[in-house]
Amino acid sequence: MWQRLPSRADQDALIAAARIAYKLPAGVEIAAASGTQALIQWLPYLTGPGAVAIMSPTYSEHAAAWTSAGHEVIPHTAFDHVPDHARYAVIVNPNNPDGRQVDQAALARIGALLLKRDGWLVIDEAFADVDPALCAVALCRDLPVIILRSFGKFYGLAGLRLGFAIGPPAMIQRVAEALGPWPCSGPALAVGRAALLDQEWADRARETLKSQAGRLDAVLAAAGFTIVGGTALFRLARHRDAGLRHAALARQHIWCRSFEWADDLLRFGLPGDDAGLDRLAAALGLCK
Amino acid sequence: MWQRLPSRADQDALIAAARIAYKLPAGVEIAAASGTQALIQWLPYLTGPGAVAIMSPTYSEHAAAWTSAGHEVIPHTAFDHVPDHARYAVIVNPNNPDGRQVDQAALARIGALLLKRDGWLVIDEAFADVDPALCAVALCRDLPVIILRSFGKFYGLAGLRLGFAIGPPAMIQRVAEALGPWPCSGPALAVGRAALLDQEWADRARETLKSQAGRLDAVLAAAGFTIVGGTALFRLARHRDAGLRHAALARQHIWCRSFEWADDLLRFGLPGDDAGLDRLAAALGLCK
Repeated sequence: MWQRLPSRADQDALIAAARIAYKLPAGVEIAAASGTQALIQWLPYLTGPGAVAIMSPTYSEHAAAWTSAGHEVIPHTAFDHVPDHARYAVIVNPNNPDGRQVDQAALARIGALLLKRDGWLVIDEAFADVDPALCAVALCRDLPVIILRSFGKFYGLAGLRLGFAIGPPAMIQRVAEALGPWPCSGPALAVGRAALLDQEWADRARETLKSQAGRLDAVLAAAGFTIVGGTALFRLARHRDAGLRHAALARQHIWCRSFEWADDLLRFGLPGDDAGLDRLAAALGLCK
Repeated sequence: MWQRLPSRADQDALIAAARIAYKLPAGVEIAAASGTQALIQWLPYLTGPGAVAIMSPTYSEHAAAWTSAGHEVIPHTAFDHVPDHARYAVIVNPNNPDGRQVDQAALARIGALLLKRDGWLVIDEAFADVDPALCAVALCRDLPVIILRSFGKFYGLAGLRLGFAIGPPAMIQRVAEALGPWPCSGPALAVGRAALLDQEWADRARETLKSQAGRLDAVLAAAGFTIVGGTALFRLARHRDAGLRHAALARQHIWCRSFEWADDLLRFGLPGDDAGLDRLAAALGLCK
Protein backbone atom coordinates (compact mmCIF):
# COMPACT_ATOMS: atom_id res chain seq x y z
CA MET A 1 0.00 0.00 0.00
CA TRP A 2 2.96 2.34 0.59
CA GLN A 3 5.64 0.91 -1.68
CA ARG A 4 4.04 0.21 -5.00
CA LEU A 5 1.92 2.43 -7.19
CA PRO A 6 -1.78 1.83 -6.56
CA SER A 7 -3.09 -0.70 -9.06
CA ARG A 8 -6.19 -0.43 -11.19
CA ALA A 9 -7.78 -3.06 -8.89
CA ASP A 10 -7.01 -0.97 -5.76
CA GLN A 11 -8.64 2.06 -7.36
CA ASP A 12 -11.66 0.10 -8.61
CA ALA A 13 -12.21 -1.36 -5.13
CA LEU A 14 -12.37 2.11 -3.59
CA ILE A 15 -14.78 3.31 -6.27
CA ALA A 16 -17.02 0.28 -5.73
CA ALA A 17 -17.16 1.01 -1.98
CA ALA A 18 -17.91 4.68 -2.61
CA ARG A 19 -20.75 3.78 -5.00
CA ILE A 20 -22.37 1.79 -2.19
CA ALA A 21 -21.71 4.33 0.57
CA TYR A 22 -23.03 7.25 -1.47
CA LYS A 23 -25.90 5.16 -2.93
CA LEU A 24 -25.12 6.02 -6.55
CA PRO A 25 -27.79 5.08 -9.07
CA ALA A 26 -26.81 3.42 -12.35
CA GLY A 27 -25.73 5.91 -14.99
CA VAL A 28 -24.00 8.18 -12.49
CA GLU A 29 -20.20 8.06 -12.28
CA ILE A 30 -17.68 8.88 -9.56
CA ALA A 31 -13.98 9.77 -9.50
CA ALA A 32 -11.64 9.85 -6.50
CA ALA A 33 -9.06 12.57 -5.80
CA SER A 34 -6.53 13.36 -3.10
CA GLY A 35 -9.03 15.47 -1.19
CA THR A 36 -12.06 17.48 -2.33
CA GLN A 37 -9.81 20.52 -2.56
CA ALA A 38 -8.03 19.01 -5.58
CA LEU A 39 -11.42 18.78 -7.30
CA ILE A 40 -12.36 22.34 -6.35
CA GLN A 41 -9.07 23.41 -7.98
CA TRP A 42 -9.69 21.51 -11.22
CA LEU A 43 -13.39 22.16 -11.96
CA PRO A 44 -12.99 25.81 -13.09
CA TYR A 45 -10.34 24.71 -15.61
CA LEU A 46 -12.54 22.01 -17.12
CA THR A 47 -15.46 24.28 -17.97
CA GLY A 48 -15.79 26.69 -20.86
CA PRO A 49 -15.74 30.42 -20.15
CA GLY A 50 -18.57 31.98 -18.17
CA ALA A 51 -19.46 33.56 -14.86
CA VAL A 52 -20.08 31.46 -11.76
CA ALA A 53 -22.65 32.28 -9.09
CA ILE A 54 -21.51 31.19 -5.65
CA MET A 55 -24.08 31.06 -2.86
CA SER A 56 -22.40 33.13 -0.16
CA PRO A 57 -21.05 33.50 2.41
CA THR A 58 -19.48 30.08 2.15
CA TYR A 59 -16.21 28.15 2.08
CA SER A 60 -13.90 30.68 0.40
CA GLU A 61 -11.83 28.26 -1.70
CA HIS A 62 -14.55 27.94 -4.34
CA ALA A 63 -14.38 31.64 -5.23
CA ALA A 64 -10.58 31.57 -5.08
CA ALA A 65 -10.34 28.66 -7.53
CA TRP A 66 -12.84 30.06 -10.07
CA THR A 67 -11.21 33.49 -9.92
CA SER A 68 -7.77 32.00 -10.36
CA ALA A 69 -8.97 30.18 -13.49
CA GLY A 70 -10.22 33.44 -14.98
CA HIS A 71 -13.99 33.21 -14.35
CA GLU A 72 -16.07 36.09 -13.08
CA VAL A 73 -17.40 35.21 -9.62
CA ILE A 74 -20.84 36.48 -8.59
CA PRO A 75 -21.46 36.04 -4.87
CA HIS A 76 -25.15 35.98 -4.11
CA THR A 77 -27.26 35.06 -1.12
CA ALA A 78 -30.50 33.65 -2.53
CA PHE A 79 -30.59 29.86 -2.48
CA ASP A 80 -33.41 29.39 -4.95
CA HIS A 81 -32.26 31.10 -8.13
CA VAL A 82 -29.16 31.96 -10.13
CA PRO A 83 -28.30 35.43 -11.50
CA ASP A 84 -29.16 35.80 -15.19
CA HIS A 85 -25.66 35.97 -16.60
CA ALA A 86 -24.19 33.07 -14.58
CA ARG A 87 -23.45 29.94 -16.57
CA TYR A 88 -22.21 28.01 -13.54
CA ALA A 89 -23.30 27.83 -9.91
CA VAL A 90 -21.74 26.52 -6.73
CA ILE A 91 -23.84 25.60 -3.70
CA VAL A 92 -22.34 24.17 -0.54
CA ASN A 93 -25.09 21.98 0.95
CA PRO A 94 -25.41 22.05 3.88
CA ASN A 95 -23.62 25.35 3.77
CA ASN A 96 -20.45 26.13 5.66
CA PRO A 97 -20.51 27.97 8.07
CA ASP A 98 -24.23 28.54 8.62
CA GLY A 99 -25.61 25.05 7.89
CA ARG A 100 -28.32 26.33 5.55
CA GLN A 101 -29.85 23.55 3.47
CA VAL A 102 -31.19 23.71 -0.07
CA ASP A 103 -33.90 21.17 -0.83
CA GLN A 104 -33.81 18.84 -3.81
CA ALA A 105 -36.61 20.62 -5.65
CA ALA A 106 -34.68 23.92 -5.59
CA LEU A 107 -31.49 22.17 -6.68
CA ALA A 108 -33.35 20.48 -9.53
CA ARG A 109 -34.73 23.84 -10.68
CA ILE A 110 -31.27 25.40 -10.67
CA GLY A 111 -29.81 22.35 -12.47
CA ALA A 112 -32.51 22.60 -15.17
CA LEU A 113 -31.83 26.32 -15.58
CA LEU A 114 -28.09 25.76 -16.01
CA LEU A 115 -28.74 22.92 -18.45
CA LYS A 116 -30.37 25.52 -20.72
CA ARG A 117 -27.30 27.74 -20.32
CA ASP A 118 -24.95 24.84 -21.13
CA GLY A 119 -23.47 25.22 -17.65
CA TRP A 120 -22.90 23.13 -14.53
CA LEU A 121 -24.21 23.14 -11.00
CA VAL A 122 -21.55 22.16 -8.48
CA ILE A 123 -22.96 20.96 -5.15
CA ASP A 124 -20.31 20.67 -2.46
CA GLU A 125 -21.67 18.08 -0.01
CA ALA A 126 -18.60 18.19 2.24
CA PHE A 127 -20.84 18.04 5.33
CA ALA A 128 -23.71 15.95 3.96
CA ASP A 129 -22.60 12.69 5.59
CA VAL A 130 -24.28 13.69 8.82
CA ASP A 131 -27.63 13.90 7.01
CA PRO A 132 -27.61 11.49 4.02
CA ALA A 133 -31.14 12.48 2.99
CA LEU A 134 -29.66 15.73 1.66
CA CYS A 135 -27.55 13.96 -0.95
CA ALA A 136 -28.54 15.01 -4.46
CA VAL A 137 -26.97 12.17 -6.48
CA ALA A 138 -30.31 11.38 -8.13
CA LEU A 139 -30.08 14.73 -9.97
CA CYS A 140 -26.86 13.73 -11.74
CA ARG A 141 -28.68 11.36 -14.04
CA ASP A 142 -30.49 14.00 -16.06
CA LEU A 143 -28.93 17.33 -15.14
CA PRO A 144 -25.44 18.87 -15.39
CA VAL A 145 -24.85 18.44 -11.68
CA ILE A 146 -21.49 17.60 -10.11
CA ILE A 147 -21.45 16.64 -6.46
CA LEU A 148 -18.33 16.81 -4.29
CA ARG A 149 -18.01 14.51 -1.28
CA SER A 150 -15.32 14.83 1.34
CA PHE A 151 -14.09 11.66 3.02
CA GLY A 152 -11.89 13.18 5.72
CA LYS A 153 -14.39 15.36 7.54
CA PHE A 154 -16.98 12.77 8.58
CA TYR A 155 -14.48 9.95 9.04
CA GLY A 156 -12.09 12.14 11.03
CA LEU A 157 -9.19 11.49 8.64
CA ALA A 158 -8.54 14.85 7.01
CA GLY A 159 -4.81 14.11 6.78
CA LEU A 160 -5.47 11.09 4.54
CA ARG A 161 -6.60 13.37 1.64
CA LEU A 162 -9.53 11.71 -0.10
CA GLY A 163 -12.52 13.21 -1.86
CA PHE A 164 -14.92 12.37 -4.67
CA ALA A 165 -16.64 13.96 -7.66
CA ILE A 166 -19.98 12.45 -8.66
CA GLY A 167 -21.84 13.29 -11.86
CA PRO A 168 -22.87 12.37 -15.40
CA PRO A 169 -20.37 10.00 -17.10
CA ALA A 170 -18.98 12.51 -19.62
CA MET A 171 -18.24 15.07 -16.91
CA ILE A 172 -16.65 12.58 -14.56
CA GLN A 173 -14.56 11.17 -17.38
CA ARG A 174 -13.23 14.67 -17.95
CA VAL A 175 -12.44 15.09 -14.25
CA ALA A 176 -10.70 11.70 -14.12
CA GLU A 177 -8.60 12.56 -17.18
CA ALA A 178 -7.54 15.82 -15.57
CA LEU A 179 -6.56 14.09 -12.34
CA GLY A 180 -4.55 11.52 -14.27
CA PRO A 181 -3.56 8.05 -13.10
CA TRP A 182 -2.84 7.40 -9.36
CA PRO A 183 -4.43 10.53 -7.90
CA CYS A 184 -4.93 8.79 -4.53
CA SER A 185 -2.30 7.29 -2.23
CA GLY A 186 -2.26 3.59 -1.40
CA PRO A 187 -3.30 4.29 2.22
CA ALA A 188 -6.18 6.53 1.05
CA LEU A 189 -7.47 3.75 -1.22
CA ALA A 190 -7.22 1.03 1.44
CA VAL A 191 -8.44 3.01 4.46
CA GLY A 192 -11.12 4.78 2.43
CA ARG A 193 -12.50 1.53 1.09
CA ALA A 194 -12.67 -0.14 4.51
CA ALA A 195 -14.33 2.87 6.13
CA LEU A 196 -16.88 3.46 3.35
CA LEU A 197 -18.01 -0.18 3.53
CA ASP A 198 -18.62 0.05 7.29
CA GLN A 199 -22.21 1.29 7.23
CA GLU A 200 -22.73 0.38 10.87
CA TRP A 201 -19.84 2.61 11.96
CA ALA A 202 -21.28 5.48 9.90
CA ASP A 203 -24.72 5.09 11.48
CA ARG A 204 -23.22 5.09 14.96
CA ALA A 205 -20.98 8.06 14.13
CA ARG A 206 -24.00 10.08 13.00
CA GLU A 207 -25.72 9.45 16.33
CA THR A 208 -22.58 10.24 18.33
CA LEU A 209 -21.96 13.45 16.38
CA LYS A 210 -25.55 14.63 16.95
CA SER A 211 -25.28 14.01 20.65
CA GLN A 212 -21.87 15.73 20.86
CA ALA A 213 -23.20 18.69 18.87
CA GLY A 214 -25.97 18.98 21.46
CA ARG A 215 -23.36 19.05 24.25
CA LEU A 216 -21.31 21.66 22.39
CA ASP A 217 -24.44 23.80 22.05
CA ALA A 218 -24.98 23.57 25.80
CA VAL A 219 -21.38 24.64 26.52
CA LEU A 220 -21.69 27.58 24.11
CA ALA A 221 -25.08 28.63 25.48
CA ALA A 222 -23.72 28.55 29.02
CA ALA A 223 -20.97 30.91 27.85
CA GLY A 224 -23.49 33.41 26.50
CA PHE A 225 -23.51 32.35 22.83
CA THR A 226 -26.63 31.96 20.71
CA ILE A 227 -26.51 29.06 18.24
CA VAL A 228 -27.52 30.38 14.83
CA GLY A 229 -26.60 27.51 12.52
CA GLY A 230 -24.29 24.65 11.68
CA THR A 231 -24.31 20.91 11.11
CA ALA A 232 -23.45 18.08 13.50
CA LEU A 233 -19.77 18.65 12.56
CA PHE A 234 -19.59 22.35 13.44
CA ARG A 235 -21.73 25.06 15.07
CA LEU A 236 -22.11 28.71 14.14
CA ALA A 237 -22.66 30.85 17.24
CA ARG A 238 -23.30 34.54 17.89
CA HIS A 239 -21.84 36.60 20.72
CA ARG A 240 -21.65 40.37 21.11
CA ASP A 241 -18.01 40.01 22.14
CA ALA A 242 -17.10 37.30 19.64
CA GLY A 243 -13.78 38.97 18.78
CA LEU A 244 -12.65 38.97 22.41
CA ARG A 245 -13.70 35.33 22.81
CA HIS A 246 -11.82 34.37 19.63
CA ALA A 247 -8.62 36.02 20.86
CA ALA A 248 -8.92 34.58 24.37
CA LEU A 249 -9.43 31.03 23.04
CA ALA A 250 -6.47 31.41 20.66
CA ARG A 251 -4.26 32.34 23.61
CA GLN A 252 -5.29 29.01 25.15
CA HIS A 253 -4.54 27.21 21.86
CA ILE A 254 -8.18 26.54 21.06
CA TRP A 255 -9.06 27.42 17.49
CA CYS A 256 -12.44 28.59 16.26
CA ARG A 257 -13.11 30.45 13.03
CA SER A 258 -13.99 34.14 12.79
CA PHE A 259 -15.38 35.88 9.70
CA GLU A 260 -14.61 39.11 7.89
CA TRP A 261 -18.27 39.59 7.03
CA ALA A 262 -19.63 39.33 10.60
CA ASP A 263 -17.85 40.39 13.76
CA ASP A 264 -20.32 38.72 16.10
CA LEU A 265 -20.09 35.16 14.72
CA LEU A 266 -17.72 32.29 15.46
CA ARG A 267 -17.65 28.79 14.01
CA PHE A 268 -16.75 25.98 16.41
CA GLY A 269 -15.67 22.58 15.08
CA LEU A 270 -16.90 19.66 17.17
CA PRO A 271 -14.21 18.82 19.77
CA GLY A 272 -12.71 15.40 19.11
CA ASP A 273 -13.66 14.03 22.53
CA ASP A 274 -15.09 14.91 25.94
CA ALA A 275 -11.74 16.22 27.14
CA GLY A 276 -11.74 18.69 24.25
CA LEU A 277 -15.25 19.81 25.17
CA ASP A 278 -14.20 20.26 28.82
CA ARG A 279 -11.17 22.33 27.74
CA LEU A 280 -13.43 24.56 25.65
CA ALA A 281 -15.88 24.98 28.53
CA ALA A 282 -13.07 25.86 30.93
CA ALA A 283 -11.48 28.32 28.50
CA LEU A 284 -14.81 30.04 27.85
CA GLY A 285 -15.43 30.17 31.60
CA LEU A 286 -12.26 32.27 31.97
CA CYS A 287 -13.65 34.84 29.51
CA LYS A 288 -16.57 35.84 31.69
CA MET B 1 -0.77 13.01 10.70
CA TRP B 2 -3.88 11.09 9.61
CA GLN B 3 -6.66 12.85 11.47
CA ARG B 4 -6.11 16.54 11.07
CA LEU B 5 -5.52 18.59 7.95
CA PRO B 6 -1.79 19.13 7.38
CA SER B 7 -0.76 22.45 8.92
CA ARG B 8 1.28 25.19 7.31
CA ALA B 9 4.16 24.14 9.59
CA ASP B 10 3.95 20.50 8.39
CA GLN B 11 4.10 21.67 4.79
CA ASP B 12 6.93 24.12 5.41
CA ALA B 13 8.97 21.40 7.12
CA LEU B 14 8.70 19.14 4.07
CA ILE B 15 9.68 21.98 1.74
CA ALA B 16 12.70 22.83 3.91
CA ALA B 17 13.85 19.20 3.78
CA ALA B 18 13.36 19.06 0.01
CA ARG B 19 15.38 22.27 -0.47
CA ILE B 20 18.30 20.59 1.29
CA ALA B 21 17.95 17.21 -0.43
CA TYR B 22 17.68 18.72 -3.91
CA LYS B 23 20.35 21.36 -3.14
CA LEU B 24 18.21 24.31 -4.24
CA PRO B 25 20.05 27.60 -4.64
CA ALA B 26 18.54 30.81 -3.27
CA GLY B 27 16.02 32.36 -5.64
CA VAL B 28 14.66 29.01 -6.80
CA GLU B 29 11.34 27.83 -5.40
CA ILE B 30 9.73 24.41 -4.91
CA ALA B 31 6.16 23.15 -4.50
CA ALA B 32 5.01 19.71 -3.33
CA ALA B 33 2.19 17.70 -4.90
CA SER B 34 0.56 14.31 -4.38
CA GLY B 35 2.92 12.68 -6.88
CA THR B 36 4.74 14.03 -9.93
CA GLN B 37 1.81 12.90 -12.05
CA ALA B 38 -0.39 15.61 -10.51
CA LEU B 39 2.18 18.16 -11.70
CA ILE B 40 2.39 16.63 -15.18
CA GLN B 41 -1.41 17.01 -15.35
CA TRP B 42 -1.41 20.67 -14.28
CA LEU B 43 1.51 22.18 -16.22
CA PRO B 44 -0.19 22.20 -19.66
CA TYR B 45 -3.14 24.11 -18.16
CA LEU B 46 -0.92 26.78 -16.60
CA THR B 47 0.83 27.80 -19.81
CA GLY B 48 -0.48 29.97 -22.60
CA PRO B 49 -1.29 28.35 -25.96
CA GLY B 50 1.53 26.89 -28.03
CA ALA B 51 3.01 23.63 -29.29
CA VAL B 52 5.16 21.44 -27.06
CA ALA B 53 8.15 19.44 -28.27
CA ILE B 54 8.55 16.21 -26.32
CA MET B 55 11.84 14.32 -26.62
CA SER B 56 10.65 10.85 -27.57
CA PRO B 57 10.17 8.01 -27.08
CA THR B 58 9.58 8.68 -23.41
CA TYR B 59 7.10 8.37 -20.55
CA SER B 60 3.79 8.68 -22.39
CA GLU B 61 1.87 10.68 -19.78
CA HIS B 62 3.54 13.95 -20.80
CA ALA B 63 2.11 13.81 -24.32
CA ALA B 64 -1.27 12.67 -22.98
CA ALA B 65 -1.51 15.62 -20.58
CA TRP B 66 -0.47 18.29 -23.10
CA THR B 67 -2.81 16.85 -25.73
CA SER B 68 -5.68 16.72 -23.27
CA ALA B 69 -5.14 20.42 -22.45
CA GLY B 70 -5.35 21.32 -26.15
CA HIS B 71 -1.67 21.80 -27.07
CA GLU B 72 -0.13 20.45 -30.25
CA VAL B 73 2.44 17.80 -29.33
CA ILE B 74 5.57 17.43 -31.49
CA PRO B 75 7.45 14.24 -30.70
CA HIS B 76 11.08 14.54 -31.76
CA THR B 77 14.22 12.55 -31.13
CA ALA B 78 17.06 15.08 -31.10
CA PHE B 79 18.17 15.98 -27.62
CA ASP B 80 20.04 19.17 -28.51
CA HIS B 81 17.49 21.38 -30.20
CA VAL B 82 13.79 22.22 -30.29
CA PRO B 83 11.64 22.39 -33.44
CA ASP B 84 11.09 25.97 -34.64
CA HIS B 85 7.41 26.31 -33.86
CA ALA B 86 7.52 24.77 -30.37
CA ARG B 87 7.03 27.19 -27.50
CA TYR B 88 7.42 24.54 -24.83
CA ALA B 89 9.65 21.49 -24.46
CA VAL B 90 9.64 18.45 -22.23
CA ILE B 91 12.79 16.42 -21.60
CA VAL B 92 12.85 13.43 -19.27
CA ASN B 93 16.41 13.33 -17.93
CA PRO B 94 17.66 10.66 -17.62
CA ASN B 95 15.11 9.46 -20.13
CA ASN B 96 12.65 6.66 -19.51
CA PRO B 97 13.00 3.99 -20.86
CA ASP B 98 16.40 4.32 -22.54
CA GLY B 99 18.34 6.23 -19.86
CA ARG B 100 19.70 8.81 -22.32
CA GLN B 101 21.14 11.84 -20.56
CA VAL B 102 21.14 15.46 -21.72
CA ASP B 103 24.02 17.52 -20.36
CA GLN B 104 23.58 20.85 -18.62
CA ALA B 105 25.03 22.86 -21.51
CA ALA B 106 22.43 21.48 -23.92
CA LEU B 107 19.64 22.07 -21.40
CA ALA B 108 20.83 25.65 -20.89
CA ARG B 109 20.82 26.25 -24.67
CA ILE B 110 17.26 24.93 -24.95
CA GLY B 111 16.17 26.98 -21.93
CA ALA B 112 17.64 30.14 -23.47
CA LEU B 113 15.90 29.42 -26.76
CA LEU B 114 12.53 28.96 -25.06
CA LEU B 115 13.07 32.12 -23.02
CA LYS B 116 13.08 34.02 -26.33
CA ARG B 117 9.85 32.26 -27.32
CA ASP B 118 8.22 33.12 -23.96
CA GLY B 119 7.94 29.39 -23.28
CA TRP B 120 9.00 26.86 -20.66
CA LEU B 121 11.37 23.93 -20.57
CA VAL B 122 10.06 21.11 -18.38
CA ILE B 123 12.75 18.69 -17.21
CA ASP B 124 11.32 15.55 -15.64
CA GLU B 125 14.04 14.28 -13.30
CA ALA B 126 11.97 11.35 -12.04
CA PHE B 127 15.05 9.11 -12.15
CA ALA B 128 17.77 11.68 -11.37
CA ASP B 129 18.17 10.67 -7.72
CA VAL B 130 20.49 7.85 -8.71
CA ASP B 131 22.86 10.38 -10.30
CA PRO B 132 22.52 13.76 -8.51
CA ALA B 133 25.10 15.42 -10.77
CA LEU B 134 22.46 15.43 -13.51
CA CYS B 135 20.16 17.75 -11.57
CA ALA B 136 19.62 21.03 -13.42
CA VAL B 137 18.29 23.19 -10.56
CA ALA B 138 20.97 25.82 -11.19
CA LEU B 139 19.27 26.64 -14.52
CA CYS B 140 16.03 27.66 -12.81
CA ARG B 141 17.56 30.90 -11.55
CA ASP B 142 17.82 32.61 -14.93
CA LEU B 143 15.83 30.48 -17.36
CA PRO B 144 12.17 29.41 -17.68
CA VAL B 145 12.97 25.90 -16.51
CA ILE B 146 10.68 23.76 -14.37
CA ILE B 147 12.10 20.60 -12.89
CA LEU B 148 9.95 17.70 -11.68
CA ARG B 149 11.28 15.40 -8.97
CA SER B 150 9.61 12.16 -7.96
CA PHE B 151 9.90 11.06 -4.35
CA GLY B 152 8.39 7.58 -4.61
CA LYS B 153 10.67 6.00 -7.20
CA PHE B 154 14.04 6.37 -5.48
CA TYR B 155 12.68 5.99 -1.95
CA GLY B 156 10.60 2.95 -2.88
CA LEU B 157 7.35 4.56 -1.70
CA ALA B 158 5.33 5.07 -4.87
CA GLY B 159 2.08 4.45 -2.95
CA LEU B 160 2.74 7.48 -0.74
CA ARG B 161 2.21 9.92 -3.67
CA LEU B 162 4.72 12.74 -3.37
CA GLY B 163 6.45 14.79 -6.04
CA PHE B 164 7.92 18.26 -6.48
CA ALA B 165 8.06 21.09 -9.00
CA ILE B 166 11.16 23.30 -8.85
CA GLY B 167 11.57 26.56 -10.76
CA PRO B 168 11.57 30.35 -10.77
CA PRO B 169 9.38 31.88 -8.00
CA ALA B 170 6.61 33.22 -10.27
CA MET B 171 6.15 29.85 -11.98
CA ILE B 172 6.16 27.86 -8.78
CA GLN B 173 3.71 30.28 -7.20
CA ARG B 174 1.37 29.58 -10.12
CA VAL B 175 1.77 25.83 -9.67
CA ALA B 176 1.15 26.09 -5.92
CA GLU B 177 -2.00 28.16 -6.50
CA ALA B 178 -3.29 25.56 -8.94
CA LEU B 179 -2.65 22.73 -6.50
CA GLY B 180 -4.43 24.63 -3.74
CA PRO B 181 -4.01 24.15 0.00
CA TRP B 182 -3.25 20.66 1.43
CA PRO B 183 -2.16 18.93 -1.79
CA CYS B 184 -0.14 16.35 0.19
CA SER B 185 -1.35 13.89 2.80
CA GLY B 186 -0.13 14.04 6.39
CA PRO B 187 1.82 10.77 5.96
CA ALA B 188 3.46 12.06 2.74
CA LEU B 189 4.61 15.21 4.55
CA ALA B 190 5.99 13.35 7.57
CA VAL B 191 7.55 10.38 5.80
CA GLY B 192 8.83 12.54 2.94
CA ARG B 193 10.52 14.97 5.31
CA ALA B 194 12.25 12.25 7.35
CA ALA B 195 13.47 10.44 4.23
CA LEU B 196 14.71 13.55 2.42
CA LEU B 197 16.77 14.59 5.45
CA ASP B 198 18.49 11.20 5.62
CA GLN B 199 21.38 11.91 3.28
CA GLU B 200 23.29 8.88 4.51
CA TRP B 201 20.45 6.54 3.56
CA ALA B 202 20.30 8.12 0.10
CA ASP B 203 24.05 7.66 -0.44
CA ARG B 204 23.84 4.02 0.60
CA ALA B 205 20.75 3.46 -1.55
CA ARG B 206 22.56 4.81 -4.61
CA GLU B 207 25.40 2.31 -4.08
CA THR B 208 22.99 -0.57 -3.46
CA LEU B 209 20.93 0.27 -6.54
CA LYS B 210 24.04 0.40 -8.74
CA SER B 211 25.20 -2.98 -7.50
CA GLN B 212 21.71 -4.49 -7.93
CA ALA B 213 21.46 -3.04 -11.43
CA GLY B 214 24.74 -4.79 -12.23
CA ARG B 215 23.29 -8.08 -11.00
CA LEU B 216 20.12 -7.55 -13.04
CA ASP B 217 22.27 -6.93 -16.12
CA ALA B 218 24.05 -10.24 -15.50
CA VAL B 219 20.74 -12.11 -15.20
CA LEU B 220 19.43 -10.53 -18.41
CA ALA B 221 22.68 -11.16 -20.30
CA ALA B 222 22.65 -14.81 -19.22
CA ALA B 223 19.13 -15.05 -20.70
CA GLY B 224 20.30 -13.73 -24.07
CA PHE B 225 19.40 -10.05 -23.65
CA THR B 226 21.63 -7.14 -24.66
CA ILE B 227 21.48 -4.16 -22.30
CA VAL B 228 20.91 -1.05 -24.39
CA GLY B 229 20.11 1.58 -21.77
CA GLY B 230 18.50 2.46 -18.47
CA THR B 231 19.33 3.93 -15.08
CA ALA B 232 20.10 2.19 -11.79
CA LEU B 233 16.30 1.95 -11.26
CA PHE B 234 15.44 0.16 -14.52
CA ARG B 235 17.19 -1.46 -17.47
CA LEU B 236 16.25 -1.42 -21.14
CA ALA B 237 17.20 -4.68 -22.84
CA ARG B 238 17.00 -6.04 -26.39
CA HIS B 239 16.06 -9.58 -27.40
CA ARG B 240 15.00 -10.94 -30.78
CA ASP B 241 12.13 -12.76 -29.08
CA ALA B 242 11.22 -9.99 -26.65
CA GLY B 243 7.48 -10.50 -27.24
CA LEU B 244 7.64 -14.17 -26.30
CA ARG B 245 9.71 -13.36 -23.20
CA HIS B 246 7.22 -10.67 -22.18
CA ALA B 247 4.27 -13.07 -22.45
CA ALA B 248 6.09 -15.89 -20.67
CA LEU B 249 7.06 -13.63 -17.75
CA ALA B 250 3.51 -12.27 -17.48
CA ARG B 251 2.22 -15.85 -17.16
CA GLN B 252 4.55 -16.17 -14.17
CA HIS B 253 3.26 -12.85 -12.76
CA ILE B 254 6.49 -11.00 -13.47
CA TRP B 255 5.86 -7.66 -15.12
CA CYS B 256 8.21 -5.92 -17.51
CA ARG B 257 7.26 -3.19 -19.97
CA SER B 258 7.00 -3.65 -23.74
CA PHE B 259 6.77 -0.84 -26.29
CA GLU B 260 4.61 -0.17 -29.32
CA TRP B 261 7.52 1.48 -31.11
CA ALA B 262 10.00 -1.41 -30.77
CA ASP B 263 9.12 -5.08 -30.68
CA ASP B 264 12.59 -6.20 -29.57
CA LEU B 265 12.88 -4.10 -26.40
CA LEU B 266 11.75 -4.70 -22.83
CA ARG B 267 12.15 -2.50 -19.77
CA PHE B 268 12.87 -4.25 -16.48
CA GLY B 269 12.38 -2.46 -13.17
CA LEU B 270 14.94 -3.35 -10.53
CA PRO B 271 13.59 -6.28 -8.48
CA GLY B 272 12.91 -5.20 -4.88
CA ASP B 273 15.25 -7.79 -3.38
CA ASP B 274 17.45 -10.82 -4.16
CA ALA B 275 14.45 -13.15 -4.08
CA GLY B 276 12.86 -11.09 -6.84
CA LEU B 277 16.02 -11.28 -8.89
CA ASP B 278 16.16 -15.07 -8.39
CA ARG B 279 12.51 -15.39 -9.48
CA LEU B 280 13.27 -13.40 -12.63
CA ALA B 281 16.33 -15.52 -13.39
CA ALA B 282 14.34 -18.73 -12.91
CA ALA B 283 11.45 -17.50 -15.04
CA LEU B 284 13.78 -16.44 -17.86
CA GLY B 285 15.55 -19.80 -17.60
CA LEU B 286 12.24 -21.50 -18.45
CA CYS B 287 12.01 -19.49 -21.69
CA LYS B 288 15.11 -20.98 -23.24
